[in-house]
Amino acid sequence: MQRILSAHLAAHVHETVTIAGWIHRRRLLKSVAFLIVRDAEGISQVVVTDPATRARLEELTEESVVEVVATVTPNEQAPGGVELTGPAIRVLSAVTVQLPFELHRPELSASLPTQLDHAALALRHPARRAALRIAAAATAGFRAALSEQRFVEIQTPKIVASATESGANVFRLDYFGRPAYLAQSPQFYKQLMVGVFERVFEVGPVFRAEPSDTARHLSQYTSLDAEMGFIEDHRDVMAALTRTLAVMMQTITARTGEPTPDVPGEIPAVHFSEALKIAGAPADEPDLAPAHERALGEWALREHGSEFVYVTGYPMRKRPFYTHPDPADPTYSNGFDLLFRGLEIVTGGQRLHRYEDYVAALALRGERAEPYEGYLDGFRYGMPPHGGWAIGLERFVARLTETANVREVTAFPRDLHRVTP
Amino acid sequence: MQRILSAHLAAHVHETVTIAGWIHRRRLLKSVAFLIVRDAEGISQVVVTDPATRARLEELTEESVVEVVATVTPNEQAPGGVELTGPAIRVLSAVTVQLPFELHRPELSASLPTQLDHAALALRHPARRAALRIAAAATAGFRAALSEQRFVEIQTPKIVASATESGANVFRLDYFGRPAYLAQSPQFYKQLMVGVFERVFEVGPVFRAEPSDTARHLSQYTSLDAEMGFIEDHRDVMAALTRTLAVMMQTITARTGEPTPDVPGEIPAVHFSEALKIAGAPADEPDLAPAHERALGEWALREHGSEFVYVTGYPMRKRPFYTHPDPADPTYSNGFDLLFRGLEIVTGGQRLHRYEDYVAALALRGERAEPYEGYLDGFRYGMPPHGGWAIGLERFVARLTETANVREVTAFPRDLHRVTP
Repeated sequence: MQRILSAHLAAHVHETVTIAGWIHRRRLLKSVAFLIVRDAEGISQVVVTDPATRARLEELTEESVVEVVATVTPNEQAPGGVELTGPAIRVLSAVTVQLPFELHRPELSASLPTQLDHAALALRHPARRAALRIAAAATAGFRAALSEQRFVEIQTPKIVASATESGANVFRLDYFGRPAYLAQSPQFYKQLMVGVFERVFEVGPVFRAEPSDTARHLSQYTSLDAEMGFIEDHRDVMAALTRTLAVMMQTITARTGEPTPDVPGEIPAVHFSEALKIAGAPADEPDLAPAHERALGEWALREHGSEFVYVTGYPMRKRPFYTHPDPADPTYSNGFDLLFRGLEIVTGGQRLHRYEDYVAALALRGERAEPYEGYLDGFRYGMPPHGGWAIGLERFVARLTETANVREVTAFPRDLHRVTP
Repeated sequence: MQRILSAHLAAHVHETVTIAGWIHRRRLLKSVAFLIVRDAEGISQVVVTDPATRARLEELTEESVVEVVATVTPNEQAPGGVELTGPAIRVLSAVTVQLPFELHRPELSASLPTQLDHAALALRHPARRAALRIAAAATAGFRAALSEQRFVEIQTPKIVASATESGANVFRLDYFGRPAYLAQSPQFYKQLMVGVFERVFEVGPVFRAEPSDTARHLSQYTSLDAEMGFIEDHRDVMAALTRTLAVMMQTITARTGEPTPDVPGEIPAVHFSEALKIAGAPADEPDLAPAHERALGEWALREHGSEFVYVTGYPMRKRPFYTHPDPADPTYSNGFDLLFRGLEIVTGGQRLHRYEDYVAALALRGERAEPYEGYLDGFRYGMPPHGGWAIGLERFVARLTETANVREVTAFPRDLHRVTP
């Protein structure tokens, strides 16, 4: 008999059906036992009165995998208005060990390290599972929005010959006896691919040998990258990003039912020098501190009813060397951040597109051009004005779900202390 | 004026339009000059008669980026039936170096190493670009097919504490002063995530420290992974894969216009022992050699009119320890390969799902369980019968486009000798 999902039971009232899943919870009352079976989409309540079945059930631990053949019976008190009666239960996989924590409570009570030590179990908790479904929907929305805007998906190398984003914070590996590094971002590759497709995107892992042990740092995270050519300046990039965010939010709500904030057709944007004033920071601050970001988030909500705000024109000295300066005042850049609920979740901007500008920018910073030669070579062969952005997927999901620690929305997080499971 | 793409010019006859792109070719005849401008979607022909414009054009090298404002004029001989006349040309980015090879010929004439050394340029060639568009479409089709079949997308760690697929062929890295490795596959993670979502997929890089210097080996490639629970055996996995391949082919044709082979509703399947007979191999061969695979491909086309054929029941001793044995004859496995035009492009099968079976399988092979503890722990907590597959994207695209070397369909390939650009 074809297995059906718990979510579809109500369409089969009075029929005999097969369901399968994990024993989420057993409730062994005096005259009756209830078995809550969890599958990918929800839960079913199975009513056990037969003494032999009950005896068997008493020996089964939570999380054992079972197949249940039973009759769908209406019951207003049961989840979805139906329960399963007269069950025949077949065990597909019996759990014989003590679980390190229970899954059926609204919150996981184990400490975060314990949860992460047993991630394969903790991720089954409905709240953890929901966050990963949101991540999947966000990613699908990202791709849909960009495909619709003529962006082409690319896959780029994660093993590179030299550290590019910054000399530190890079993982070194043994590449057939030579040193190589894990890519900190697909930055130059996506820029070079603008020369091929004009508009490209990539969803993939990036690696930071980040010594910070905080609630928002991971040593591997998923970066949602995009890059586009033939722009006037960074404002074209912001418009494409705004459109993309709107589709991401729509896709999350459509796929998961979770409410998402409105993305304004035009997200409010403030120049960095103005942002400092709004945040009450000294005019000579070179960057925004977390408290400033929070203040800007409050300002955007208060003044514009927006949970999003762009900060444009960051000072050049705080942006990477490939950033395009503001032609009107080259101490500022055509780079921007997007704050969501007072936290930076996207960094983007216009990039340099002429080879000679790269050479000059590196010289200005006292950096040698040699480590970048493999990338810069491509800029000799004609590149249009271009720009792009990168969204950190885990930070985005954490902010959306108001989760304190990115590790809670990451399947098997990697950080300073953790490389297992 | 809003830029339009070359592909849309025919809808603007007699209008003044703006196009932009790369100078694909210049043809400087005596009385007239033709400029062929390439953009993301195609090419436009620009007719230059004005002496001043022509003089400027003579100084511009191929691949310079230009913006052209001109009139769309019908001309049956021109690409798309229109050409651009009376152009005003603005240079966005001038190329001042000699190109290492020409892009406007039907084939790139430079050697493959030279092409790869200048990948940012070579990838602009229409044939190379077309292969990457096919890869993007294949990936989109893979995701669409699986989302429709209730699979949830996951992102798993690429940095792992121990080598899992086999002790050799693994890249070692320095992880905050401790040794760690690049993941050779998401195998165990996708299996563990069956415990969360029942059905999962992942598109991501995998890493093999592959010392083989062949036309089909890369040290980083893109793996299209899927895993599904609550199966009877490997045949459920094959059915899901067949459906997925059909959608991949449809998506490629829909997005790129490239013809793709029919995927039969049921792809012919032969047991390994039968496959040896068909291929004329000795009955005690433990595996299929490339010549055997080719013979099977020819047989499937001849006998079943199919460019695809499954080989099932590979001997257990040639499959990884996590493979589920055939219950009817445990010397054979519930593992399969899919051959496409006589080449293996997918490996899959049913996996073990009980913790004690893993421990026994490792003991049987004389392997210690310790390196696998982080993964196997999850199997203590209830896993349904499950299986899955992995498609090597670059091999798939190479086979589909009948390209001899996977490096020709990979954006920036990595191999034994190459870690740049």
